[in-house]
Parts: sequence; C-alpha cells; structure tokens
Amino acid sequence: MHKKILISEVGPRDGLQNCKGVMPTEVKKRWIKGLYEAGVREIEVGSFVPPKLFPQLADTAELVEYAKTFADLRVLALVPNLRGAKAAIEAGVTSMGFPLSVSETHSEKNLRQTHDQAIENVAAIASLIADQPKEKRPEFEGALSTAFGCTIEGEIREDQVLRLAERLIEAGVDELGLSDTVGYGNPKSVRSLIRKTREVAGDDKVKSVHLHNTYGLGLANALAAYEEGIKVFDSSQGGLGGCPASPGASGNIVTEDMVYMFEMMGVETGVDLDALIKCRDYLAEGLPGEPVYGFTPNAGLPKIYR
Amino acid sequence: MHKKILISEVGPRDGLQNCKGVMPTEVKKRWIKGLYEAGVREIEVGSFVPPKLFPQLADTAELVEYAKTFADLRVLALVPNLRGAKAAIEAGVTSMGFPLSVSETHSEKNLRQTHDQAIENVAAIASLIADQPKEKRPEFEGALSTAFGCTIEGEIREDQVLRLAERLIEAGVDELGLSDTVGYGNPKSVRSLIRKTREVAGDDKVKSVHLHNTYGLGLANALAAYEEGIKVFDSSQGGLGGCPASPGASGNIVTEDMVYMFEMMGVETGVDLDALIKCRDYLAEGLPGEPVYGFTPNAGLPKIYR
Repeated sequence: MHKKILISEVGPRDGLQNCKGVMPTEVKKRWIKGLYEAGVREIEVGSFVPPKLFPQLADTAELVEYAKTFADLRVLALVPNLRGAKAAIEAGVTSMGFPLSVSETHSEKNLRQTHDQAIENVAAIASLIADQPKEKRPEFEGALSTAFGCTIEGEIREDQVLRLAERLIEAGVDELGLSDTVGYGNPKSVRSLIRKTREVAGDDKVKSVHLHNTYGLGLANALAAYEEGIKVFDSSQGGLGGCPASPGASGNIVTEDMVYMFEMMGVETGVDLDALIKCRDYLAEGLPGEPVYGFTPNAGLPKIYR
Repeated sequence: MHKKILISEVGPRDGLQNCKGVMPTEVKKRWIKGLYEAGVREIEVGSFVPPKLFPQLADTAELVEYAKTFADLRVLALVPNLRGAKAAIEAGVTSMGFPLSVSETHSEKNLRQTHDQAIENVAAIASLIADQPKEKRPEFEGALSTAFGCTIEGEIREDQVLRLAERLIEAGVDELGLSDTVGYGNPKSVRSLIRKTREVAGDDKVKSVHLHNTYGLGLANALAAYEEGIKVFDSSQGGLGGCPASPGASGNIVTEDMVYMFEMMGVETGVDLDALIKCRDYLAEGLPGEPVYGFTPNAGLPKIYR
C-alpha cells in the first residue's frame, strides 16, 4: 500500500456553499493560511458560479489569488461552464473541476445542463485550456457527481458512470474524480466503481474520491478507496457541507477524523492534527452558530497518537 | 468474502452499564423482545457483577431467563469471577464472557485482578463448566479488553495480547474476542492483531470483535475485521456505552449504522433496519434524556436501501 496520501480540503467550497451564513473574506483567508500552516497542500477555495445564486462563494477569484501566494499549495475551484473556466484561468487556479452529475435529473437541477450540454461545456473548456500559454494551463478534472446514488433518481447504475467517464475523457479532461455526493456509497460499491472506472479510463486517470458521511460510512469508504490505490481524498473541516440540490444529503467526511485515521495507520498526510484542530476556531469566528462535527476533536487526541 | 455475519447487541450490558440512569426491568424486557423481533439473534443482556457497584445490571439473572424464552436467541452475559459464573450457569446463559484486560493497570482498576488472578479465575470457571451436565454447559469466551490500546497505559503491544491469548486458551476458554475498549484501534492494527491472534490461537478461536467508535473509526475497523474473516460484531443500539474505567472512552459502534453498512454491501445481518430503528423508542422510554447516536436513524434510510 502507498504510504502517502493527499488530503484535499473542500470546506471553503463544498462546506461554505451549504451554510446559510456568509463567511467574511478576511476570515476565509486566515482559515486558508491556517490550513496551509497545518500542512494542508490542496484546498478547493471556491466555485466560479453566479454570486447572486451563491453569495457565499462570491469572493472565489480573490481567494484563488490569495491562496496562490503559498508556493506549494494546490489551489482548486469548481467551474460549471466556460464563463467560470475563463474566470478560473484568469485568477490562476492550479486545477479546476467540472461537476458532471451522473444522475441527469440532478444535473439539470444542479447545473441546469443535460448530459449533452455538460459534455459540450467540458469540451469547450478543454479547448480554452489548450489555447492558453503553457504556464497558464490549469489541470482539468471531471468530477462524476452522484456516482454512487442520487436522492432524486435513487440507484445509479455503474454502466451510466462508465459511459460518462469515457465521454469526459474524450471531451478532454485530464483526470476523473468519483463523487459520492449524497453519501449512498458503501465499501463494496466504492471498490467496484474505482476498479471499473480505471478499466475504462486508465489507472492514472482516476486519482481522487469525494466521499460523504451521511450514513456514517465515510471513513470505511475512504479505507476501501485507499486500498484500491486512491491517493487524493476530499474532506471538509468540521464536516461542513452537503449538496443543496440533494435533500438530506449533508455531511462531508470530517477532515480531522480522516487525518486521524490515515496517520494512525502509518499513512502520511503531511497534516499536523493539533494545528488542524485549532483551525476550527476560524469556523466559529466566521460562521457563528454553524454546527461543526468530528469525533477526534471531541474525544481529544489519544495518548498513542504519533 | 462470507455473505452473512452475526450482530451481537451489547446495549443492554455495555450500554446500560455506562448510563447514569437505571432502565426499568420491564422496559429492558420489551427492548430485548423488540430487538429479537427485529431479527437480532445475539444479545449481551447483562453482567453478573455486584448490584451495589452496578445497580443498572442488578436484574441480569431475570433478563437471562426472560431472553432464553426466545428459542433461537443467543443470550450472553459477562462474568468477572467464579461467583458470577455460577449465577450465569444457574440463569442459563448461552455463552459467558470473561473480560481480561490486556492492560494490567486497567485490569486491576476494572476487575481488581492482576493478570495471574484473572487467569486463575478463568481456569476455575472452565472447570466449573466442565463439571456441569452437558446440556447446562455454556460457551465460554475470553474477551481481550484494551487489546488495541489503553487510556491509562497508552500503547498495548501486540505480543502482550498474544501471550494472554495463549494463556486464556490454556486456561480453558472456547474462543477469544478482541475488544477495542477505548477506541484506539485503526484498520491496520485491527487487521494485524486478528491475523496474529489467529496464528497463536487457531483460526476458529477468534470469532468476534468488540469495536468502539470513539474516534469515528468504528465502521472502518469493522470493515477491516470483516475482510479478515470475522463473523461476529458487537455493537450497541444508539451507540450507548463505553468503559467506566477508561476516561473519555465512550462510544460503542451504533448497531443501526453497522447493520446499514453490511446490508448495503450485500452482507446479510438478518436484521430489519426499520424495525431496529423503532426499538430506539425503548431507550427514550427507559432512559429519558440519555443521548443516543447514529447517522442512519438521523438521515433516514435512503431510496436505494434494500
């Protein structure tokens, strides 16, 4: 098994997007700085979406520029269309992700795009990237949302995921992420879909998983994904976040608990857990009253934690 | 992988032992009946300990007798000494467990027994069982408590566990259980200790694990144990319980969430999850105000739950 993984902190995007309050930009910056100082090396800082619809993420461009001042920090943002992609490149993201929902109903509700429209958008974004001077080209990930099930459509068949995985690769994404947007995944389905997606898209194309903890299976699913060779794991500090278009689908994996699990297994995350837990103060400051979660912060690090 | 596991509900013992309130015997009986009707086929109903120290468990004999009226229900109880074992046999348990703490400090605090004293007690109980007429002989499990770490001693070395595993087998237990009493285990240590204990004690001797969710790793650890071939999993409805001698070590795995995980993986538990969730009403009735946990009961069963 690989001895090192990358934690991709999605709290500033997936977390804040689903909170009622708006965290002040200055607090977000201190949070990002705190995460970086705790050893986090990949942060999804926002989404290039209309500020009217998502006032919580209106400062994404400013945050990308700020986060890029930390030399070895990978700075991610979501883009739902060509307009967003232009803004993301302008701001200087390391990588951008296009969230393609395998559930077409969810895609239409969330992005207002059919699958065909979404794939067209992906192709247009891929062309835009190819047209950039080399030093300005971000990485481009196709994130397969609702890949393990959908609150609206229910079951999502594996062959639907695989067909869209192929189409995303053909349309020009560099890599694929598998997202359990509503938390329906289980260790068996996680293992199976990772294997099959790799068969279709190539081993090196499936690097990351975005798992939720809606039914408490987040870490068990992460373990299964790790054992299948996944190296990048999304999670959210304090478990902030969910999906507004999927009722009841709250709950990213808590970053603190994921760091704890992997470090206890001897798998390096690069994150100082004490320092990470201190960053919860930014959540309390910037989003007073917002509930935060996590077993490890509540129990306190055990004597044997290395 | 095996397609069937046995959920061993420990709420009436491990759960209630660690609650301040005392659940009335009549409510306990209805709870046990409800669990049985939901498909639970093994319940640890109590512990034969001094009622003065554990008033919550004073009715253990009565509960064993009641639970034994359900023909195919395995009825378990803990026994800390010969006196307890006599009472357990008298009441008619299917199986009794002796909790031997691998941390000798914890053993002295919890059972007031050194390792030598504990092993003597185990040998005496094994003789007592052997002296019974065949139809009255219960199974006898040696439960290795604090096998994955101890809040007092910190790290517990694997060779300590293995030495005591051998001594328990020599002293006459039928099988061994590995208990993560304080929740320090992780998927790697769980896999490793199961393998090594089997090498020492024999594959068929290590059947069950008792895992806690203190750091949120309960289900990930259960998954690892399942993949190592474990077939019996302790858990507690609503996540009641912990260990009074291990400060901060609250939190059994929530039975509802464990049933959910295995059933979603296609592994049969025999438990009807809707019916099990309804049994939470007995906790509310018998222990008003006591916090209960669980992701699955809070989120509600998803559309795709089979």
